Amino acid sequence: EVDLSNIATLELWNKIRKDCESVDTSSIQRSFVNHVYSTLARTPYNLDEFGAYQAAAHSVRDQLIHKWISTQQHFTRSNPKRVYYLSLEFLMGRTMQNCVINMDMEEAYSKALREMGLAFETLYDQETDAALGNGGLGRLAACYMDSLATLDYPALGYGLRYTYGIFEQRIRNGEDQVEYPDYWLRFTNPWEVARVDVAYPVGFYGSVHNDSAGRAGQPGQPAARWEPAEFVQAVAYDVPIPGYDTDTVLNIRLWSSKPQRQFDLSSFNDGEYEKSVAEKQRAENITSVLYPNDNTPAGKELRLKQQYFFVCATLQDILRRFSKLNLPWSELPNKVGIQLNDTHPSLGIVELQRVLVDEHGLEWDIAWALVQRVYAYTNHTVLPEALECWPVSLMERLLPRHMRIIFDINLYFLRSVEQRFPGDYERLRRMSIIEEGHQQMVRMAYLAVVGSHTVNGVARIHSDLVRSKLFRDFAEFYGDDKFVNITNGITPRRWLHVANPQLSALITKRLGSNRWLKDLTELSRLKAFADDEDFQQEWRQVKRTRKESLAEYIQKHVDTAGEGPVNSEALFDVQVKRIHEYKRQLMNILGVVHRYLRIKEASAEERRDIVPRVFIFGGKAAPGYHTAKLIIKLINRVKNVINADPDAELRKLIRVVYIPNYSVTLAERIIPASDISEHISTAGTEASGTSNMKFVLNGGLLIGTRDGANVEIAEHIGGWDLAFEFGAKAEEVDDLRNKVRYLRPEIHPAFRRVVEAIKSGQFGDSSPFVNMLDRLVSDGDYYLITVDFPSYPEAQERVDAAYKDQKKWTRMSIENCAGMGFFSADRSVQDYAKKIWGINPCPPPPSK
Amino acid sequence: EVDLSNIATLELWNKIRKDCESVDTSSIQRSFVNHVYSTLARTPYNLDEFGAYQAAAHSVRDQLIHKWISTQQHFTRSNPKRVYYLSLEFLMGRTMQNCVINMDMEEAYSKALREMGLAFETLYDQETDAALGNGGLGRLAACYMDSLATLDYPALGYGLRYTYGIFEQRIRNGEDQVEYPDYWLRFTNPWEVARVDVAYPVGFYGSVHNDSAGRAGQPGQPAARWEPAEFVQAVAYDVPIPGYDTDTVLNIRLWSSKPQRQFDLSSFNDGEYEKSVAEKQRAENITSVLYPNDNTPAGKELRLKQQYFFVCATLQDILRRFSKLNLPWSELPNKVGIQLNDTHPSLGIVELQRVLVDEHGLEWDIAWALVQRVYAYTNHTVLPEALECWPVSLMERLLPRHMRIIFDINLYFLRSVEQRFPGDYERLRRMSIIEEGHQQMVRMAYLAVVGSHTVNGVARIHSDLVRSKLFRDFAEFYGDDKFVNITNGITPRRWLHVANPQLSALITKRLGSNRWLKDLTELSRLKAFADDEDFQQEWRQVKRTRKESLAEYIQKHVDTAGEGPVNSEALFDVQVKRIHEYKRQLMNILGVVHRYLRIKEASAEERRDIVPRVFIFGGKAAPGYHTAKLIIKLINRVKNVINADPDAELRKLIRVVYIPNYSVTLAERIIPASDISEHISTAGTEASGTSNMKFVLNGGLLIGTRDGANVEIAEHIGGWDLAFEFGAKAEEVDDLRNKVRYLRPEIHPAFRRVVEAIKSGQFGDSSPFVNMLDRLVSDGDYYLITVDFPSYPEAQERVDAAYKDQKKWTRMSIENCAGMGFFSADRSVQDYAKKIWGINPCPPPPSK
Repeated sequence: EVDLSNIATLELWNKIRKDCESVDTSSIQRSFVNHVYSTLARTPYNLDEFGAYQAAAHSVRDQLIHKWISTQQHFTRSNPKRVYYLSLEFLMGRTMQNCVINMDMEEAYSKALREMGLAFETLYDQETDAALGNGGLGRLAACYMDSLATLDYPALGYGLRYTYGIFEQRIRNGEDQVEYPDYWLRFTNPWEVARVDVAYPVGFYGSVHNDSAGRAGQPGQPAARWEPAEFVQAVAYDVPIPGYDTDTVLNIRLWSSKPQRQFDLSSFNDGEYEKSVAEKQRAENITSVLYPNDNTPAGKELRLKQQYFFVCATLQDILRRFSKLNLPWSELPNKVGIQLNDTHPSLGIVELQRVLVDEHGLEWDIAWALVQRVYAYTNHTVLPEALECWPVSLMERLLPRHMRIIFDINLYFLRSVEQRFPGDYERLRRMSIIEEGHQQMVRMAYLAVVGSHTVNGVARIHSDLVRSKLFRDFAEFYGDDKFVNITNGITPRRWLHVANPQLSALITKRLGSNRWLKDLTELSRLKAFADDEDFQQEWRQVKRTRKESLAEYIQKHVDTAGEGPVNSEALFDVQVKRIHEYKRQLMNILGVVHRYLRIKEASAEERRDIVPRVFIFGGKAAPGYHTAKLIIKLINRVKNVINADPDAELRKLIRVVYIPNYSVTLAERIIPASDISEHISTAGTEASGTSNMKFVLNGGLLIGTRDGANVEIAEHIGGWDLAFEFGAKAEEVDDLRNKVRYLRPEIHPAFRRVVEAIKSGQFGDSSPFVNMLDRLVSDGDYYLITVDFPSYPEAQERVDAAYKDQKKWTRMSIENCAGMGFFSADRSVQDYAKKIWGINPCPPPPSK
Repeated sequence: EVDLSNIATLELWNKIRKDCESVDTSSIQRSFVNHVYSTLARTPYNLDEFGAYQAAAHSVRDQLIHKWISTQQHFTRSNPKRVYYLSLEFLMGRTMQNCVINMDMEEAYSKALREMGLAFETLYDQETDAALGNGGLGRLAACYMDSLATLDYPALGYGLRYTYGIFEQRIRNGEDQVEYPDYWLRFTNPWEVARVDVAYPVGFYGSVHNDSAGRAGQPGQPAARWEPAEFVQAVAYDVPIPGYDTDTVLNIRLWSSKPQRQFDLSSFNDGEYEKSVAEKQRAENITSVLYPNDNTPAGKELRLKQQYFFVCATLQDILRRFSKLNLPWSELPNKVGIQLNDTHPSLGIVELQRVLVDEHGLEWDIAWALVQRVYAYTNHTVLPEALECWPVSLMERLLPRHMRIIFDINLYFLRSVEQRFPGDYERLRRMSIIEEGHQQMVRMAYLAVVGSHTVNGVARIHSDLVRSKLFRDFAEFYGDDKFVNITNGITPRRWLHVANPQLSALITKRLGSNRWLKDLTELSRLKAFADDEDFQQEWRQVKRTRKESLAEYIQKHVDTAGEGPVNSEALFDVQVKRIHEYKRQLMNILGVVHRYLRIKEASAEERRDIVPRVFIFGGKAAPGYHTAKLIIKLINRVKNVINADPDAELRKLIRVVYIPNYSVTLAERIIPASDISEHISTAGTEASGTSNMKFVLNGGLLIGTRDGANVEIAEHIGGWDLAFEFGAKAEEVDDLRNKVRYLRPEIHPAFRRVVEAIKSGQFGDSSPFVNMLDRLVSDGDYYLITVDFPSYPEAQERVDAAYKDQKKWTRMSIENCAGMGFFSADRSVQDYAKKIWGINPCPPPPSK
């Protein structure tokens, strides 16, 4: 619509754009002042810190968007195969600092704002986390986007823009979790671009009609036409993701549900105006809430609506982009790769098949072959209770056409299985996408396996279990090659450089460059300095600084009921993650009680030998997860008693802290301060874990089981001698479960004693806990706490012993960090690009 | 928080701000391009007209806000008495064009964008109306804000930011109104500033406690303390209002309801997380919908919630501003005047009394005297069914403390009445704020009268009725002086200069300057040219241009079922306004039928004498107002038959158009094209009307009753000879109503014939209309259609006769326009300022 026929016009546009992109001091100042006045309608006289943050954020955003536009234009021109990363969660945390660091503008902003009477760095804390995820899965997606951008991959993230992110956790009466809505969009969000021009209709309910006229181009075959009864609109909000040390800025497109402008007339009868408005408001509810579940599928219709809303809008967007290329459908897999981050978006498989067959008239088999070449699926759990299933009856009502397509996919799939294994009906029953039972269910994981060309687990041990246990029948049918491993990784930019600038600077100084930030294997060169006295001292000094800073935060922001400051000389022992039985925070707190009882009875002399510890807990429990909430209560009860113990000498040796509302931003504060962190899940239950990587990267040691990424971390740092291992191994777990269930082995006296202490009322009324504790010693110890407990305090004693020798400890710490090169998310996404997606970097052209 | 201690820092701020404020071509271009890229994330290659509008709007907004900040700072420094205009409706229409014209930047933008390959003026049509009002009352508020800004009055508007404005009307099946939600905020709104820093809690429900400790400073008196059970937050959105030809930019502060960050813990029991989120969403619903009612109070709890939400937030804001002055409470009326635009905000009276007594410990009588000196109330209707009443039971539940205060106000008031009229219990019953009956009701109009120092009507005849009928008892008690008249006015900037640039240019040319835009009485000088041949020709040419343009719009945007273009040579006869029985669109369409029947039976020779007419209807009916919707159906039925009459010659003489979705923007298009407009309400029912003023200002003549502002318009233009008057007079109406009700006078044959034609099925199945028509000739003719009908076609004949003499008609048209000086909203607000508010202009200091 802009008339660019005149060359002078185009030159004018380009000239002004160039002006706008400059980031010299006066340009930054002009942009900042303009946002103070025009965007915020404020003045220097009434500009508080939050206002200053907003203005700065808008100014940074402007720069970000210029680069983002250039990247998108470059991709369009280069037209490479792209990968689309579909994730119902993106746990982004804060943006501003990450942005200016990745774009190398921190100093420029700092200088520009200093001249205006403001300290730029103090504004970071004004930002609210974007917390559109529950835990590891969502944070992984965020790390991967950072790496994809840094490595210039042509990738695009897709997700949902929840009005309410993960709930805010507070602790009521000093012991119970209580949830508050996280209304993060109350203020305008500078880190997104509302794309009112990008909107798609999404239908629900309705009926399927067979079109006797036949399918387009295939007169013989009946065509099915879905007529949804209800429509909402998906509107795009784009979140730019800048790479580090590159001009590439990728995009995460988040969908927000809005009422349709055009909609069903039938709801508009006389006098029903207000009712109709209310209906439209319900449309907005689809993307209202992030389901606060971790590893437990929510059996909610609205959740299924979210999932379909997500894939329907996303596929329309992906196919619109493909259709602009004017290529035949056979080219689709050469231009489009879609990665399913867990099963939540796996309805996308069905939706693509539907669109190709019903809307574009492709033959079933041709369409299905394309679908399988487009999709790949990442499995994140082998916990049986966490595998997503949906009732057929619900799916039939909400998505009648999709349900029929699933039945057809299943039919053709089982036929081919039967050809390979004739007469093995038990196998067919096991492998069916439809679970028969008192209620027919759709097994989303099976659908994802059948509709993808590749399935990956997220750590070696997990991928082995995926292949050999969870999908064994499928591996037998498709061959092992379909099942691969890509060990998770984390971005060293956020998790070391931004979170721990002191350590980052020390490493850069020692290695002579910051190249390690783009090639984390460079860290291995630190091993040479592991025993260097000066380096050790500096290393310890960094840790001390970070521990003091965390102690200060706890003093200021955590309700410590006047218990006085935390001793930052003590060993900081941290377990922060979602609260879940399989992660065994319960075992940790029972271990704390065990230690407390021992200290209590120790003589003054014995006490002198004890390493003072601060046990730091943090994490949220899904609001409906009763046992997890009980564990939080127990942790806090124990904390309250220990911290208030009348014995002042004892209180110097043991202290417990519960930091409420664990978040990405809190993780950035807590992780650098940890001496030892706990990753103590029952072997075979934690798929990978990524916080373990973050702790080690920041020079913290691990105590843990041989589970998830712990196994590979131990290998890379130089073996289990450099970490603290205990507990059953994954291959023993099945057998042990049967044993505790049916044979009831003797319970270790130390464990009994701890349980008795709690039951005795030493930590307040024990009635809420009795059931939970009794189940552990009868047939309810599914996660083998009683089995692993004896070896757990023993491992902790090894930790104490090691800590006493600070030189040895520091050497271990340095060697731990030095071994982390493998765990960069950069390596992970390169693995994905090569092994699964078949895409190449598409770096920006050198700027003129 | 900004460190301005260094003089260099302050100078830097000032220098950059000055840069940002410049509106030379290259500054505009830079600002525009920056918004294209950074705000919209677009490029010149994908910038459609809507995108270009958005970028231009943001650029204009930036300029607007600079001036707005300066105005607010100036007011703060000058500290004059301010007036607060409280209105639940502001019918703003579009903003951009009005803005650049008022700020004299249209040419600059036009030039700057032309160089960039864009036509600025074509972007105006991309803007969605801000339609936060139903009709005249809301548009009046918008006009007054324009005038207050133009005259530099220290005023502030307060209203609600409805998510859905007045519904979008479409016509279904060619005849029925159907309502669609007006989701005007789907795109970001550049004309508002979200003030996340300005937010107040608003409580509902709960209970009242008597504090035995006594009231602050008054140990004897019991203090009442309201403890609301539910809280929501009111967040401010500011809408800057630029004056014409001045740097003053006023503010309308609109409140939006949001969930509280802190809220009642009790709703947060285990597992109720999702329920709680849903509850928070309900908080947002308070400002979700503008009640689509016109002159009928909605008996909805949510509506009462809206009203209290509005006044509670507004008073907190006003009192916060007052408290900054550190003055004693006795100064309140010297700094604060509050105008209630109708009774909708009259809970503000109770709220102020509550805050003064309960929260600040003032004595009841002292507080009440202050309240009365602060408030003034504008009455907008004398229709009994339109007077707002609320059930005591509802008010008691929603606002328990306020209900008790109302009872107390009433008690003290009635005591003083009884002192003046001892023993006149009938009078007490009549004047009581509480209406006794099968359900106790609060009479909001009485509350408004008792709590205000001045009550005004909006046209002379209406103010007379207010004093002599509606509030007669109150006038007897308080004296006549409390009841004044301020005849409504309209802003000539929007309603002539912006809406009709051709006529504006002609007037400016003839008067030799555009001073008339700030002093509308200048128009009287046009009278001298009323017979000037050249001027007449130009005058007619303007009207012709505007009629052609409307005909084109109709052809393009109104479903004319292939009836061909409207003949723009015909006389355009317009009735556009809310559809309501008292406004008598029914009489108009019956008149159309009458004319149609006459033309049908006229001979070819007789037909030659007939003036061709296009009857143009437009307007919305409240969705629940059955009869009004029936009238729309009848208009369209008649339209469909007449326009499809097989007699092509007849179709040249009469044509009916229904323009759907009447709005401010459509009014700006329709009004300049009118030859005659209809203002035919039953005498005594229309308070003022303002569209009558708009039509006449644009050189259209009136046909009307002696009602509302018609009376004064006729006086000012030089008497009823210059307009077309008919029908009963207000003082006859009561008597006539009794007559038609009890005596059933003979119905005029012309009327009978029209009704019979409809009943015969000539306009399709008549069954929907039979009841409505039969009621007119039995006891249901409350609005006296049968009484006025005979004189109505007769008046239309006078219109025809006048129109045939185009010179005479043009003279009348010029004289009409020339007489409109009195009806400028500038005069109205000056009247308010002098007679009611006691405020003075506070012009901006001369710029350096």
